[in-house]
Amino acid sequence: MNQVIIIGKGPAGISAAIYLKRAGIDPIVIGKDLGALGDYKSTIENYYGFDQPIDGKKLIEDGIKQASFLGIQIIDETVISIKDNIDHFSVITKTSNLQSETVLLATGKTRENLSIPGYRKFKGKGISMCATCDGYFYRKKKIGIVGCGHYMKHELEYLSRMTKDITVFTHGNELDEDLGFPIIKEPILEFGGIDKISYVKTKNGTHEVDGLFIALGAPSSIEFANQLGLIVEKGNLIINQEYQTNVPGIFAAGDITGGKLQIAKAVYDGMEVADYIYKYLKFKKTKTA
Amino acid sequence: MNQVIIIGKGPAGISAAIYLKRAGIDPIVIGKDLGALGDYKSTIENYYGFDQPIDGKKLIEDGIKQASFLGIQIIDETVISIKDNIDHFSVITKTSNLQSETVLLATGKTRENLSIPGYRKFKGKGISMCATCDGYFYRKKKIGIVGCGHYMKHELEYLSRMTKDITVFTHGNELDEDLGFPIIKEPILEFGGIDKISYVKTKNGTHEVDGLFIALGAPSSIEFANQLGLIVEKGNLIINQEYQTNVPGIFAAGDITGGKLQIAKAVYDGMEVADYIYKYLKFKKTKTA
Repeated sequence: MNQVIIIGKGPAGISAAIYLKRAGIDPIVIGKDLGALGDYKSTIENYYGFDQPIDGKKLIEDGIKQASFLGIQIIDETVISIKDNIDHFSVITKTSNLQSETVLLATGKTRENLSIPGYRKFKGKGISMCATCDGYFYRKKKIGIVGCGHYMKHELEYLSRMTKDITVFTHGNELDEDLGFPIIKEPILEFGGIDKISYVKTKNGTHEVDGLFIALGAPSSIEFANQLGLIVEKGNLIINQEYQTNVPGIFAAGDITGGKLQIAKAVYDGMEVADYIYKYLKFKKTKTA
Repeated sequence: MNQVIIIGKGPAGISAAIYLKRAGIDPIVIGKDLGALGDYKSTIENYYGFDQPIDGKKLIEDGIKQASFLGIQIIDETVISIKDNIDHFSVITKTSNLQSETVLLATGKTRENLSIPGYRKFKGKGISMCATCDGYFYRKKKIGIVGCGHYMKHELEYLSRMTKDITVFTHGNELDEDLGFPIIKEPILEFGGIDKISYVKTKNGTHEVDGLFIALGAPSSIEFANQLGLIVEKGNLIINQEYQTNVPGIFAAGDITGGKLQIAKAVYDGMEVADYIYKYLKFKKTKTA
């Protein structure tokens, strides 16, 4: 049983890992590059300690190297889901199912970068970000799922228990695999409907749907929040002063907890949450000893 | 009139300067290398963003370069005293007297590195760190002052108004200047006395004193606190949630405010205090407009 699994290898996750390691705890950091790095395309001038403006991607990479240098285990995989087993958590990737006493969510903010006409209009009106949350409402209905990676497959597996009428939209991405469902690879041009989504328009056709699930890239902390029943307000995970979510053992830090979306804040959060995770584990041990 | 003068060019001071600059305010940073750098002799592994452990001195230097790169004015001088002129503050160095609407104290923690026998025993019992605070008690008495730089001279000037019987102890440092007072250059071996200090022992003699003032190096935030009447508890400047001390317009950030003595915390403080200084100035402008 691991003591801490950190999801996300940006400033908050790595900073937490470093401070936990220093406190004598061996955290495992799990994350796939693509997500967080996309956020740091720009040049950073306002994070203290660099005589020259630093490339965001390089900063993230250096942070990962820094953690590795200190002997912290980093797994370069997408976390697909997190399960609450009451006395511990399962963190599931494509190739592994790791058990941990605590989980730190540090995946950064959801990037609402799906600039397809109708996306914002129908989000929450037939467009869902969470199969576990909303799949049940589409039993035996006609649905679509947008995505092309492991996360999509994970969500598809869940949705396929509800209905067999599913179309996969890769939105221009390759997918050479038989999923047992029709696959539309053309880019999506529009999400349409009146009160709620009723069709997905691509170059070569219009595809009717009762609902549509988005499972692009890696799930964000908000998706994990949906899986775990965490409280979310205005797109931020709600935490207390000890960085705890409403589910004991699940902590959150960095951009996803709101406040200033700054590296300095994420790094500070990481330092602080490490302390509170340490105290949580120690208290738990005392109680069960 | 300047809007903000920041005293200290370590992580808290520079981080605040960067965020103020970004907010459209031109801060002036004043500090002399020696002080803060001494604190960072060790290798730093736990501040996020460096693929290799970083030398503390290099980090501080890079931070200064980073601020310069952004066009922030940095004055490489020791601040000797700060005066409260009710509607603004005077920040005094050897060569200048700058006026500012606000002052940010970010000088780091006092380093109690005077490892002379009797120092701890008699601190507060005849050994004082602040001429302005305690000079009055030694009117027409026999006192000593320990120091060799501008800060010592500043304190000496003040003390000379109280008494003419002053001996200067340079504690092994050179001082080729006629101060109008006897100068003892030998290293101090011991501070002695019974209930309070009564003598300073050097290699070649024992020098009786009624009181002794320490004015080594640069004054710390605590010394400025004494000058300004700021509340200090357990060696920390007391600030509210908006990083304000009890004197309106005087802010503090970093190690001197207590909490974790970590770079990540100082940098975060710098970011936060910049915001509150900005708001303070804006509010003040609205009021007087």
